[in-house]
Amino acid sequence: MTEDTESAPRPVIDAVRAALEQRDAPALVELMEPLHPADIADLLEQIGSGERRALLALWGREIDGEILSEIDESIREEVIASLSPEVLAEAVRELDSDDVVDILEDLEEPEQERILQSLDSEDRVAVEQSLSYPEYSAGRLMQREVVTAPEHWTVGEAIDFLRAEDWLPDQFYHVVLVDPRMKPVGYVTLGRILSARRETKLSAITEDSFRTVKATESETEVAYIFNQYHLISAPVVDEAGRLVGVITIDDAMAVLDEEHEEDVLRLAGVGDEASVNDGPLDTARQRLPWLVVNLFTASLSALVISQFEATIAALVALAALMPIVASTGGIAGTQSLAVAVRGLATRSLTTANARRIVVKELFAGMLNGLGLAVILGLAGWLIFADPMLGVVLGLAMICNQVVAALGGVLVPLTLNRLKFDPALASGTFVTTLTDVMGFFAFLGFATLFLL
Amino acid sequence: MTEDTESAPRPVIDAVRAALEQRDAPALVELMEPLHPADIADLLEQIGSGERRALLALWGREIDGEILSEIDESIREEVIASLSPEVLAEAVRELDSDDVVDILEDLEEPEQERILQSLDSEDRVAVEQSLSYPEYSAGRLMQREVVTAPEHWTVGEAIDFLRAEDWLPDQFYHVVLVDPRMKPVGYVTLGRILSARRETKLSAITEDSFRTVKATESETEVAYIFNQYHLISAPVVDEAGRLVGVITIDDAMAVLDEEHEEDVLRLAGVGDEASVNDGPLDTARQRLPWLVVNLFTASLSALVISQFEATIAALVALAALMPIVASTGGIAGTQSLAVAVRGLATRSLTTANARRIVVKELFAGMLNGLGLAVILGLAGWLIFADPMLGVVLGLAMICNQVVAALGGVLVPLTLNRLKFDPALASGTFVTTLTDVMGFFAFLGFATLFLL
Repeated sequence: MTEDTESAPRPVIDAVRAALEQRDAPALVELMEPLHPADIADLLEQIGSGERRALLALWGREIDGEILSEIDESIREEVIASLSPEVLAEAVRELDSDDVVDILEDLEEPEQERILQSLDSEDRVAVEQSLSYPEYSAGRLMQREVVTAPEHWTVGEAIDFLRAEDWLPDQFYHVVLVDPRMKPVGYVTLGRILSARRETKLSAITEDSFRTVKATESETEVAYIFNQYHLISAPVVDEAGRLVGVITIDDAMAVLDEEHEEDVLRLAGVGDEASVNDGPLDTARQRLPWLVVNLFTASLSALVISQFEATIAALVALAALMPIVASTGGIAGTQSLAVAVRGLATRSLTTANARRIVVKELFAGMLNGLGLAVILGLAGWLIFADPMLGVVLGLAMICNQVVAALGGVLVPLTLNRLKFDPALASGTFVTTLTDVMGFFAFLGFATLFLL
Repeated sequence: MTEDTESAPRPVIDAVRAALEQRDAPALVELMEPLHPADIADLLEQIGSGERRALLALWGREIDGEILSEIDESIREEVIASLSPEVLAEAVRELDSDDVVDILEDLEEPEQERILQSLDSEDRVAVEQSLSYPEYSAGRLMQREVVTAPEHWTVGEAIDFLRAEDWLPDQFYHVVLVDPRMKPVGYVTLGRILSARRETKLSAITEDSFRTVKATESETEVAYIFNQYHLISAPVVDEAGRLVGVITIDDAMAVLDEEHEEDVLRLAGVGDEASVNDGPLDTARQRLPWLVVNLFTASLSALVISQFEATIAALVALAALMPIVASTGGIAGTQSLAVAVRGLATRSLTTANARRIVVKELFAGMLNGLGLAVILGLAGWLIFADPMLGVVLGLAMICNQVVAALGGVLVPLTLNRLKFDPALASGTFVTTLTDVMGFFAFLGFATLFLL
């Protein structure tokens, strides 16, 4: 990255804070002016809520549509509420329809209405139509502004048309060819149009990569298609196959990014909208549900252990050793789980190879179980001078590693088969499994061999 | 997605398997022919290694460059080794330089040499220059084929130039304006060129989004810039600021995808190259290191517990209850960790707001600690008919939830400060912390209040 494109660095944020403290509006304008809208959005997210209110009061009139669409959902409502109706209307009017939809869908009804009213009637209809598609669908993601040409046109006709139009979108990469009923039949890259001769038929230079997306398709599927087939843009069609919009790769990239965020957060048992910007109350509330669930699943472990109280009473050292087998199982289960969830997300784990991969996990679990059993068994024998304690530790370790490896792949596969998100709560299931199995195997073998 | 663009579905894979069993080459060709190279790569990954050998023997001559560049690294070497020198040379020659580099960088020296020899001398020089940049740098990611124009040209001159050239890359979205010393000074989208008048100066219609990337910049930074600033392409410059190549958004999207994969896998303590396609031996080997580390960290918990053996001997029920506090702490730590690691990756957690976010975690941890303490404390009291046991459970829970919330954010922040990947091994550190603290707090309070 060259010097002049540095994103809002620490010194800028500190200078902004100083200007806020002195309520120095001109200094603030000067500091913010060179920043990219995305960096201004980041800055608004990173300062505290008191500082944010001060900044919006001093500088709010400069907020434009691009900043609004970059800003994180966790504080967007707060920023919008602080803007005057005129500033808000002006900001929204300059955006493409997909960005307006993105802003509107997270707002309350009255706020939505206020923004819709500020749009031209044509834009309002476009936005309302997008909003009529389900949340997280291609219809919500698409922009309505599409550059099309009849399929029988030549390169020359297309160029003359493009020269004459003044409503073209900010960014477009293809001209979509449509039949008389507005069904897309192919697309031509602008590079081809520029390098072809004027009399060339557009239909002779279409791209093989052409694919359409149904407006009701999920955005997950859209992101997958863009990533899998290296698309730059894809026309969106309605149920009748007629062109209703276009999705571009930058939107697909944003979805891919969100999906990954969801996976990481769900695997960890955090609500998938969690962000570092959330306040302590929201943060606590997002996390409490899985903590309470874990309280109950952990009670299962307690119940298992309580069955062996006589064994523990006879040999108290067991109480100290028992978490080792359970905890190593938890790690192994998490490892197997992460690979499986990732495999399901990238569709490299499918029904076509699930059986082979489960068998592979079984072997991998046995191998690592054996390796760990040798280390732990020898350590147990040497430290406690009791070979049978080593055997108990080793056997329990093998059992639990196998259960962990299998659980890590079978739990997400099962959730997926049942049409749940495989990342959702898998972690809790798998660690419950490895805890229960770890304590049961260790204390069970101890009861058999040591008493 | 429309019917005709369905990726290799289960029935196709089953049909391919049947054709392989009957060694029916014509049927195989017919089945594979309609598939996209990316889907053929997926199919090769999803069948077993025996089936893959059979398929390559029967159908290997059809493998082209696009399939090679789509195929997962875990099996690419195997596929390349099976190809005849002619097929391989032909496959590689049709690729852009960035794709050739992507294939070469994971191969052994003799294989690399074999592929380099099969390229035209001009392409070979381009690829060798890219390979001279460090691994995971922008220089490795870029393609050398860039469409440039002198900064003083008009739209008409640019169009005439594009018409006359026949070496243009498959996909390009901008014309990069360069000064006489080949330093990029701006870029113009093809859409603008098409819609502007012939006599318009290119320099008058450049895009604001223009940013260059240094060839030595990390690919992580490149992915961040594309995502943050919604770039479609970015010129790459050498140390002297001269244009050496261009990176396009599809490559940046692929990097973003890999980075996420690394995060998910590293958080779970799996080598970051793990894939569902790896065999059982590789799988076991990738996972063993952190399992062994966990064996040692779990011994810390055992050591803590062993200090309280007298307490446990006096009240064996404690052994059954102690994993509850530790395990709920582990979940809370993982939650806080996931949000922090994600925040660091998206740069929404920075030095500018780290302190505020640590304080927020502290409050969130206390809130959930209090909530869980009430539930668990009441349950302990009622089930064991001992109010003091409830108090011990509750106090231990509060301590451990606070430690978990703080550890989850402080561990990755510290790793990041020390220039390590914050995702690497954070999970092991944090769960060790919550295990040790959970056992210590619970057994410590029990010793104080119950004996």
